[in-house]
Amino acid sequence: MSDITLYFDLLSQPSRAVYLFLKAAKIPFKENNMDLMKEEHKKPEYLQINPAGQVPAVKVGDFCLTESAAILKYLASLKGKKDWNGKTVEYEARIDQYLSWQQSGMRKPCIEVFIPTLINKITFGLFIQKNIDPKQAEDAKKALEVAICQFEDRYLKSLTDKKTKIKFIGGSHISVADILAYCELYQLSAVGKEGFYKKSPAVKQWMADVEKEIENGGGKGTLEKANKRLCEVKEKFAAADGAKK
Amino acid sequence: MSDITLYFDLLSQPSRAVYLFLKAAKIPFKENNMDLMKEEHKKPEYLQINPAGQVPAVKVGDFCLTESAAILKYLASLKGKKDWNGKTVEYEARIDQYLSWQQSGMRKPCIEVFIPTLINKITFGLFIQKNIDPKQAEDAKKALEVAICQFEDRYLKSLTDKKTKIKFIGGSHISVADILAYCELYQLSAVGKEGFYKKSPAVKQWMADVEKEIENGGGKGTLEKANKRLCEVKEKFAAADGAKK
Repeated sequence: MSDITLYFDLLSQPSRAVYLFLKAAKIPFKENNMDLMKEEHKKPEYLQINPAGQVPAVKVGDFCLTESAAILKYLASLKGKKDWNGKTVEYEARIDQYLSWQQSGMRKPCIEVFIPTLINKITFGLFIQKNIDPKQAEDAKKALEVAICQFEDRYLKSLTDKKTKIKFIGGSHISVADILAYCELYQLSAVGKEGFYKKSPAVKQWMADVEKEIENGGGKGTLEKANKRLCEVKEKFAAADGAKK
Repeated sequence: MSDITLYFDLLSQPSRAVYLFLKAAKIPFKENNMDLMKEEHKKPEYLQINPAGQVPAVKVGDFCLTESAAILKYLASLKGKKDWNGKTVEYEARIDQYLSWQQSGMRKPCIEVFIPTLINKITFGLFIQKNIDPKQAEDAKKALEVAICQFEDRYLKSLTDKKTKIKFIGGSHISVADILAYCELYQLSAVGKEGFYKKSPAVKQWMADVEKEIENGGGKGTLEKANKRLCEVKEKFAAADGAKK
């Protein structure tokens, strides 16, 4: 039996990232589903694991760890999957650079489009429907466009020769940074906003390459399973969107 | 001659963190001062190094790296100062957890107290004096109090026994995370807000321990040199603050 317990809800994009990484890297783990919609992540027993009351978290023996970027790197290192953290010092540095940048550079703009678009149309669990200020929506859209341009320009191009495209964020092979970035962007498709990343051929190609690597490692159907809860959102959103048009 | 060039301005707290780390870890480097107040970080030649136009950045051969957390880890790894990234997989994970959390958990609340407090009293270079909404100031104060409590509770206590204080963020020895956290908090002293961290005996003790380690490694006067530009802010602020009382 595995010594790793993952506390997660596949509704959360960092949870999906850790889940997909473990599958793609063939690392066995015990699943501990935390239903965010039932606020299981705020219960006292879970606050012992993660005092911040957020998912994902992992427990290995007595050791508990939070923050998806740290969890991904730790599990790759613990289980000898070093390539996922980068083959060289420079490769790892480039991954760390992305992991540091993504919080304000990518995660924030993605969330600021995803959540308002969602609640502008539907109520889903704890997300209550609410009309969104069009000015705020326009600002969020512009910020996300900038983020995706920066992502393409700074992370999907070669370090030394800016004209040369590289395959993944760190270079030639997939890393934990790719998985985290993929989950962040893919979430937009649940609210019909996949146009943001599909507009960029480089980003679109990179997403297809990431998907291929995940299914190569985790097996066919890995992505479908990981995105099941997101699909519930997608279906409910699409129905409301269609009815209102 | 060193192969590392650091692009920095000691007015910026992440610049001070990288500078202090290099001094404390006795890693030689070439200094390339970028005067933020003259907007040298927006010049085309620097945008080749860091397209985001921010400091710090490092260049080693052809390899350029941005994002202070990534830079710190990279330089420690490159120069064989592995203890600064954590002696064990778990120690490094705990450092990575802090580095991930700090952006929204610590940096944002510190900045949201520092900048408005500063510009409420003085104009300093590109910071233009402006009256601040008292409600906004009160919210920022509360957020910073919460951040410092979380920092003490989650990062300065033992992982397995929450009652046991540990010496540094990762455990028994100083790491890159301590340097980054120290610079973030210390900056508050320039605008008379050191009360936020001095109120907590654990945080106050930890700051003294970090200072001791820096001076042990970098030599007496290292902190004074690193904080020289911040002292200019402090003096100007104190004069304005005194005049207005």
